[in-house]
Amino acid sequence: MPITALRIFSDLTAEDETLMILKEGVAPHKIVFPARLAPSVLSKSEPDPALAEADIAFGQPDAAGVLQAQRLRWLQVSSAGYTRYDNPEFRESAAKRNLLVTNSSAVYSEPCAEHVLAFMLAQARRLADALQAGASGDSASWLQLRSTSTLLRNQSVVILGFGSIGRHLVELLRPFGMNIVAFRRKPSGDEGVSVVTSEHLAHALATADHVVNLLPANPGSVRFVSEPQFHAMKRGSVFYNIGRGATVDQDALLAALRSGHLAAAWLDVTEPEPLPPGHPLLGAPNCFLTPHIAGGHKNESEMLVRHFLENFHRFLRGEPLHDRVI
Amino acid sequence: MPITALRIFSDLTAEDETLMILKEGVAPHKIVFPARLAPSVLSKSEPDPALAEADIAFGQPDAAGVLQAQRLRWLQVSSAGYTRYDNPEFRESAAKRNLLVTNSSAVYSEPCAEHVLAFMLAQARRLADALQAGASGDSASWLQLRSTSTLLRNQSVVILGFGSIGRHLVELLRPFGMNIVAFRRKPSGDEGVSVVTSEHLAHALATADHVVNLLPANPGSVRFVSEPQFHAMKRGSVFYNIGRGATVDQDALLAALRSGHLAAAWLDVTEPEPLPPGHPLLGAPNCFLTPHIAGGHKNESEMLVRHFLENFHRFLRGEPLHDRVI
Repeated sequence: MPITALRIFSDLTAEDETLMILKEGVAPHKIVFPARLAPSVLSKSEPDPALAEADIAFGQPDAAGVLQAQRLRWLQVSSAGYTRYDNPEFRESAAKRNLLVTNSSAVYSEPCAEHVLAFMLAQARRLADALQAGASGDSASWLQLRSTSTLLRNQSVVILGFGSIGRHLVELLRPFGMNIVAFRRKPSGDEGVSVVTSEHLAHALATADHVVNLLPANPGSVRFVSEPQFHAMKRGSVFYNIGRGATVDQDALLAALRSGHLAAAWLDVTEPEPLPPGHPLLGAPNCFLTPHIAGGHKNESEMLVRHFLENFHRFLRGEPLHDRVI
Repeated sequence: MPITALRIFSDLTAEDETLMILKEGVAPHKIVFPARLAPSVLSKSEPDPALAEADIAFGQPDAAGVLQAQRLRWLQVSSAGYTRYDNPEFRESAAKRNLLVTNSSAVYSEPCAEHVLAFMLAQARRLADALQAGASGDSASWLQLRSTSTLLRNQSVVILGFGSIGRHLVELLRPFGMNIVAFRRKPSGDEGVSVVTSEHLAHALATADHVVNLLPANPGSVRFVSEPQFHAMKRGSVFYNIGRGATVDQDALLAALRSGHLAAAWLDVTEPEPLPPGHPLLGAPNCFLTPHIAGGHKNESEMLVRHFLENFHRFLRGEPLHDRVI
């Protein structure tokens, strides 16, 4: 196959200038667009016949279509999550035909880490209440706000799932002098923080002021944080979810909030999204929700394209790709 | 004077256990309490005759009473601000009689620095809007939230007033790789960041994404941030005030918010406090207010006492005191 003949299927939703960067970046290779673009970079695309002709795919292509696309050698997913490809059938089929799968976690790890720290500091400094307060000095509500504000300094945090976001988060937390423990099924030894596996997780949870869930959703992580894990957490601790809603048993979370066992929960992800009106988490005590925006930022689509192009040039040179997940 | 005879006047408002730490910490020297305690550690005390007999004062004693207390050799103010003592008459009188004045900025610098970072990240991650949103994926409001969220990484910040809070803030900002410039009237050379003086401030303001005001209030700083400074700031920048309300021309701030020149303002301090109902800053676009709580935290009064005791032992040994301000 001549090297000029690669066809790159891209269903990335982006402004024209950004798509131009993509087009020019792969030239003389060719970008093929689907008939209809998805409404956002995180949305699943509809099946599209152009995928069947492609050597490379970039975006959120239909999983069945990917498996049927016989020429496809590499898929770069335009998100950090890749749940729709993360199952045994897909992995097996990908392995058989040497299909590489990479994700875009390099683009999302910094905003997600900043979002987690925004949550942690908003909780410590009681921002949600303080911004509403209009309290005056010496009033009971003012004294209460001041005396219940806390510091991250010297507190402890357990991070569930320790990939790219976790590593960024640890760097942001360093100056606070916190005690940081990462939970990982298979420690690699290069985490740079204390790591626990399943058998010692309950002990770590029992001493943590903050529990940050960054787990991706896959068959092994569904409802990973359930009643026993919430029970193991210290009374008065705070739970954060920036991973995926499906990794948490929301009924158990709700019970932990209602009983006051958890001081608060800060959730950027839920199941489903958005929560339907009247969902009990919407009115749960000290439950703070943002609508799955942790990874978003102004230059997101341009950074997605630049991250793809960096991998594209590695692919052409036969070098290992960044953010390989399958 | 026998070393056991020191009398320490303390009008600190604190729980009994905390006052016990103070009493035991200074023994065999004697704590003298005023007839009436102020409602909080930041409130001005009423004049009290016990001050006239004291060698040392700790808290917020009446400034005129301090100047009249002939035995007084050292005053430790139980706040970071010390406006009521910070004027030429007080300084001159203190200098004449070798009265040392220290403040408690070591106790407040960490919570204040964390509060500033909480503000900066809440702004970057659009927390105030996002917590209200309930937006669903792919909706226009959701796309808008995601695409207007920003990252602190690689942004630039100017810090006005560079004391203990500023130094802590710089440590917390280090991992974000920000461009940090401090404004200081008299650079000491040990700031560890770029420092500008008045003549280059406008240039620094013109390039900053964030302007953080930490200036204390004194005759030289009143309305320091006025129309020319807001005008010098970059369009779309964000202004934070954790210093004192009096250092800002609030009419000029209001105009900068209304015209959209400033993207937002986050204020923990205003003048007066609290703002009266109907004050135009309360309804100003993108103006976020917390009610002077940045320095507050759970163990505040105990830390105030421990910080005083550390200085007390230095005082007894004739060593230089921490946080000396006059």
